[in-house]
Amino acid sequence: MGKIICTGLGPGDPDLISVKSDRLIRGAHHVAYFRKAGRAGQARAIVQGMLRADAVEYPMEYPVTTEMHFDSPEYNDALARFYDDWAERLAAVAQGADVIVLCEGDPFFYGSFMHLHTRLQGRAEVEVIPGITGMTGCWNAVGTPFTWGDDVLSVLMATLPEADLVHHMQRSDAMVIMKTGRNLPKVRSALQATGRLNDAWLVERGTMPTQRIARLSDVDAADCPYFAIVLVHGQGRRPEIGGLE
Amino acid sequence: MGKIICTGLGPGDPDLISVKSDRLIRGAHHVAYFRKAGRAGQARAIVQGMLRADAVEYPMEYPVTTEMHFDSPEYNDALARFYDDWAERLAAVAQGADVIVLCEGDPFFYGSFMHLHTRLQGRAEVEVIPGITGMTGCWNAVGTPFTWGDDVLSVLMATLPEADLVHHMQRSDAMVIMKTGRNLPKVRSALQATGRLNDAWLVERGTMPTQRIARLSDVDAADCPYFAIVLVHGQGRRPEIGGLE
Repeated sequence: MGKIICTGLGPGDPDLISVKSDRLIRGAHHVAYFRKAGRAGQARAIVQGMLRADAVEYPMEYPVTTEMHFDSPEYNDALARFYDDWAERLAAVAQGADVIVLCEGDPFFYGSFMHLHTRLQGRAEVEVIPGITGMTGCWNAVGTPFTWGDDVLSVLMATLPEADLVHHMQRSDAMVIMKTGRNLPKVRSALQATGRLNDAWLVERGTMPTQRIARLSDVDAADCPYFAIVLVHGQGRRPEIGGLE
Repeated sequence: MGKIICTGLGPGDPDLISVKSDRLIRGAHHVAYFRKAGRAGQARAIVQGMLRADAVEYPMEYPVTTEMHFDSPEYNDALARFYDDWAERLAAVAQGADVIVLCEGDPFFYGSFMHLHTRLQGRAEVEVIPGITGMTGCWNAVGTPFTWGDDVLSVLMATLPEADLVHHMQRSDAMVIMKTGRNLPKVRSALQATGRLNDAWLVERGTMPTQRIARLSDVDAADCPYFAIVLVHGQGRRPEIGGLE
């Protein structure tokens, strides 16, 4: 009996994969990963050059390629059947061999693998190996400390109503806002309303060679991919340079 | 001219260090790390067996060993001078060679290195390598997905006033509460007030061989180290198993 082992790949730079995941990926005979139909897939791209020549690959292609009908029953049903199907297929492979599943960031942090994890309970042995989250990669890409002292950090999805975003922003010191894309005008408006727009950064592909870091106030709202992350740094308590004068 | 390179060690399991940090640590000639006076130090313990035999070590011992006077001017002054002093010493070493600084978790996420980072600007070249945060290690140790869909995650310090904790808990789906220790009764009370106590986990040393995971409601308040982390998992939107029936 094999296991299904989900390896967190971290934020994108293959050198930031953990020693454990790196070893498992390089030795894997069966490798599965999510991707949009017709695309190479970001997870697969991160491990380019790391897989065995004889590794069997299982690209798990999402049944829909846009975020347009995110809340519709049809979209949810198609996704549910997609996860049902792949849980069954991976469990079948794991009858005879280990299967490595590649997941960007950390698998348990808003990750697609969680839907397989739920479905695999009782059907296969499952192991999850943590990874550096995408947001951690992004705040490191900006290059300045992110949270200090008693700072409250809020991680918010840009898909939330603007009033909810404003409420959380009013009471937060540091912020991470994910799933931006077409929601960027709403995020910008909420940050403006709470006086934080000029502190905000937009980071795409943090830690990767193609990373882009910009002041959010300088970014054209039409030019924001879904996976870009907005960051506002905390300004909490710290011992003054030079101490008491 | 050398560089000062801060390597994020991740949550504790040395196998979860990134490939890049692992390589730098194993090759390092000068290695600095924080610790409490008279203790081996957690960061140093994580890299046990990894350092070169001839590596020069720089244990940076905090000038105070308890959190008792956390907000006092004297405590802050002692800490400020401690960071001033070590920034100067490490910058001097970096005149001739690279210095690797070991930091648990991710260096920019509530990390002590941030105080050196601030002081080293303009005095030495500084590079920071991300690590898996302690909280990511802890939610992986619990073994179930942490945040789903549009979940709002709040990261809170247990040192905050109870009213602030309650306010944030009322509006959060998933929560991480750090710096628990003697603040545990306050955290428990705030979770009780917001109906989340029975969903809360207490995790110590997540990912390490000595990890402890318990339902918070089962833990004696007197038995909580400062670095234990309280977690409440999100329950956000997800496609149902089996899809639409």
